[in-house]
Amino acid sequence: MDIQYVNSMNYEKFSYVFGNVIEKCPLVAAAVWSKRPFKDILDLENNIEEFIDSLPQSGKEGILRCHPDLAGKDFLSGSLTVESQGEQRSAGLTTLTPGQVSQLQQLNTSYRDRFHFPFVVCARKSDKDTIIQQLSLRVHNPPEQELLIGMEEVKKICHLRLLDIFDQVSRL
Amino acid sequence: MDIQYVNSMNYEKFSYVFGNVIEKCPLVAAAVWSKRPFKDILDLENNIEEFIDSLPQSGKEGILRCHPDLAGKDFLSGSLTVESQGEQRSAGLTTLTPGQVSQLQQLNTSYRDRFHFPFVVCARKSDKDTIIQQLSLRVHNPPEQELLIGMEEVKKICHLRLLDIFDQVSRL
Repeated sequence: MDIQYVNSMNYEKFSYVFGNVIEKCPLVAAAVWSKRPFKDILDLENNIEEFIDSLPQSGKEGILRCHPDLAGKDFLSGSLTVESQGEQRSAGLTTLTPGQVSQLQQLNTSYRDRFHFPFVVCARKSDKDTIIQQLSLRVHNPPEQELLIGMEEVKKICHLRLLDIFDQVSRL
Repeated sequence: MDIQYVNSMNYEKFSYVFGNVIEKCPLVAAAVWSKRPFKDILDLENNIEEFIDSLPQSGKEGILRCHPDLAGKDFLSGSLTVESQGEQRSAGLTTLTPGQVSQLQQLNTSYRDRFHFPFVVCARKSDKDTIIQQLSLRVHNPPEQELLIGMEEVKKICHLRLLDIFDQVSRL
């Protein structure tokens, strides 16, 4: 991979490649394209983080809301984004017992009811048992803390998606 | 239509109904949901405008970049959003002569090359001849002026889309 290749992309190509590094928020890649050229992958990542950090609280909550529930409706119906599907699978969420699915869905509902955004976690850095345990604990946090934790998880997800893209593009 | 109905929508419903009032930027509706309940349609619109005004310059440029070219590739291939398709049709862009298509595409390219975002205009408040004339003039503006004008056009487009939604929802 070569950052020069990224810097040479026109907007159409850039948004196609990086449009979902923040789940279902193509506006982020559209904004960050203003900041090219990038020195390296870290510089690109820093610009993405800087943009989402610049959003007002409602915008950060909006970013969390663009994420699907873990083992939720989109997961069960097969309508997740390709990225989310791979992430949820890697955490073992395809091998939940019916009891675990039910437990996770109840916890997701409690979490949404309390915070008005979904529970977001970097599934690839976790596994199904840890996710259920974390969700059981995080649902009791104060809202401002959960917003902060959620946004840090969004950044971890973005980091891994960027690494995937750079790895893939290097093989072109 | 009744603002109480909007205020009673869960997030899934709200994002389905209002997700494209800012073209291809579902994050805006996702963010604005934080601001409910809304007093009336104007309050909802004001919150949308406040959110996009709060974005850094790159975010505003990003919003413009999420818009398609007028009579551009998406228009010709039929892959516009439903809203954009209706708007471009209403301005008469389906009845351009081949010469006008070519002229518009050349102007679009010049505009993009200069500003790094597409020419955005509220097509429903215009017509094909005026659009071509405006584009011919606006392409010479300073970038900071075009960013301002473009964002005002985005707000006009949003205003009409909201009116459409409220009109439709009132007939449910």
